[in-house]
Amino acid sequence: MPFPGDATVSEAGEFPLIARLRDVFPQGEQVLVGPGDDAAVLRIRNGHVVVSTDMLVEGQHFRREWASACDIGHRAAAANLSDINAMGGRAHSLTIALGAPRDLPAAWALEFAEGFAEECALVDASVVGGDLAVADSLVVAVTVLGSCTQAPVLRSGAEPGDVLALCGRQGWAASGLAVLGRGFRSPRVLVEAYRRPEPPYDAGRIAAESGATAMIDISDGLLADARHLAEESGVAIDVRRDAFEIAEPLQAVAAATGADPLQFILGGGDDHALLGTFPSAEVPEGWTVVGSVAEGAAVTVDGAPYDGPTGWTHF
Amino acid sequence: MPFPGDATVSEAGEFPLIARLRDVFPQGEQVLVGPGDDAAVLRIRNGHVVVSTDMLVEGQHFRREWASACDIGHRAAAANLSDINAMGGRAHSLTIALGAPRDLPAAWALEFAEGFAEECALVDASVVGGDLAVADSLVVAVTVLGSCTQAPVLRSGAEPGDVLALCGRQGWAASGLAVLGRGFRSPRVLVEAYRRPEPPYDAGRIAAESGATAMIDISDGLLADARHLAEESGVAIDVRRDAFEIAEPLQAVAAATGADPLQFILGGGDDHALLGTFPSAEVPEGWTVVGSVAEGAAVTVDGAPYDGPTGWTHF
Repeated sequence: MPFPGDATVSEAGEFPLIARLRDVFPQGEQVLVGPGDDAAVLRIRNGHVVVSTDMLVEGQHFRREWASACDIGHRAAAANLSDINAMGGRAHSLTIALGAPRDLPAAWALEFAEGFAEECALVDASVVGGDLAVADSLVVAVTVLGSCTQAPVLRSGAEPGDVLALCGRQGWAASGLAVLGRGFRSPRVLVEAYRRPEPPYDAGRIAAESGATAMIDISDGLLADARHLAEESGVAIDVRRDAFEIAEPLQAVAAATGADPLQFILGGGDDHALLGTFPSAEVPEGWTVVGSVAEGAAVTVDGAPYDGPTGWTHF
Repeated sequence: MPFPGDATVSEAGEFPLIARLRDVFPQGEQVLVGPGDDAAVLRIRNGHVVVSTDMLVEGQHFRREWASACDIGHRAAAANLSDINAMGGRAHSLTIALGAPRDLPAAWALEFAEGFAEECALVDASVVGGDLAVADSLVVAVTVLGSCTQAPVLRSGAEPGDVLALCGRQGWAASGLAVLGRGFRSPRVLVEAYRRPEPPYDAGRIAAESGATAMIDISDGLLADARHLAEESGVAIDVRRDAFEIAEPLQAVAAATGADPLQFILGGGDDHALLGTFPSAEVPEGWTVVGSVAEGAAVTVDGAPYDGPTGWTHF
């Protein structure tokens, strides 16, 4: 151990810390040259790469007091792995750039890396490169690379007559965040859902193989992301309230806070559920039909405009 | 124009600003799906990808008062394109994540993007995806993807008996930064060298084809990066002072500031020159032999330890 356990990143020093971080990340068989050179080199099959990038900023996307470093590592990885899932693909390689205040505990950075690596291991993806910089506040930028076994499913392919379907827990993370925001720590299952989302990592590929016409991962909010699908596809989307089973813990939080439990489901992101459209009501196992696609441009709930919060506003 | 010219990023709004930014980036023929979906899809030739990531933080890596948004865009792209150059490859695709304070002028973001796109155009690379987040200070995280036409040149291949050679301007950006740091704006050629480095983008590939055994891009400082080569290769490197021609403007700055002009050359980064090792003194055109490789572990100057600054310390 080249630096004491309570060292800050500044005390640990860039190169010793990078050396420790590198040890956290096992390298998959696609990695011809791993971290430590000017660039990594990856073997690519299928003749294509699917690539996406995301930036998470402390205070905007996470708070150290609401989740452990390990949890935040899981969340940061999940947000990116999920983008490849939403194309019908599977991630294989990621890079992380970490902007850290000088007084960040080096142990925080290592635990973050461990959580990140654990989440990546769920899909056999490797962290193949990174960067470490000094910043006023904590910033994590991730880029993920993956591949598809068939044509990628875009946001733009929904057709009038398709059904809208959902796969994965939805509204759990948002209600967990609402609980934390009020200073509580329970229902624990919701707080955990916020801290460690469980995106349905196989569902994207299965949906693609089952003929999904459009797909998106719900990160802004169900209705906000339905709007992205509607806009890119040039269609109208209607969501049915009665399609959602409202799980007991969500009902409990809604009752305790006086909120409509549907607002967590319709407006929440962070679970990284998938929203897809399919040409018939026969959706793959694990998917639930929650609405329909028609000609037009609006996103409605039970045929009418929705006046609750529809999702995350970044600015 | 969906927002006024003097709007902040917050006033412009995330999605209108992203739409404007997207228009700045032309898409190359490798781009099967460009920005705007959950992920981009790229056609990959040669069965591999070379990938690297870098984070630039305001106050650490750039200052808005020392360079225009367009210049900073050029610098951010150059730093990343150069990492692929140093593998003997060529970049084809990049992603950018921008963390912006709410009050950042939207025009700054657009001019940054234009400068970034101009630099990428020098090597026919495309910006295929991005993210925009609110942050306390300005942070830019870039990931670059590229490919090689032959085996990538690593840091670890230098052999005793090799010569050490340099390609590209070296020390110009560091002396330009020294000038700016003292509140001056001239010699203009050095200030411009800092603001818009001119990495030798073809030199990496040519070096690889000419049998370079190891290579690195000088971003930390010539001696600091020579140390990375020495450590990864398990060799000693000696740099010869008399190998460097000291350009007139560097002499002028050194005279005016009482500095040794060699300190800009030996300690400076930011020009993104290439440092490589070759098995014989016959180095490719454009490269200058500046030292030698031997058994051992030290990095020396004229056979002795160097006691000046050897490069950038991040933490």
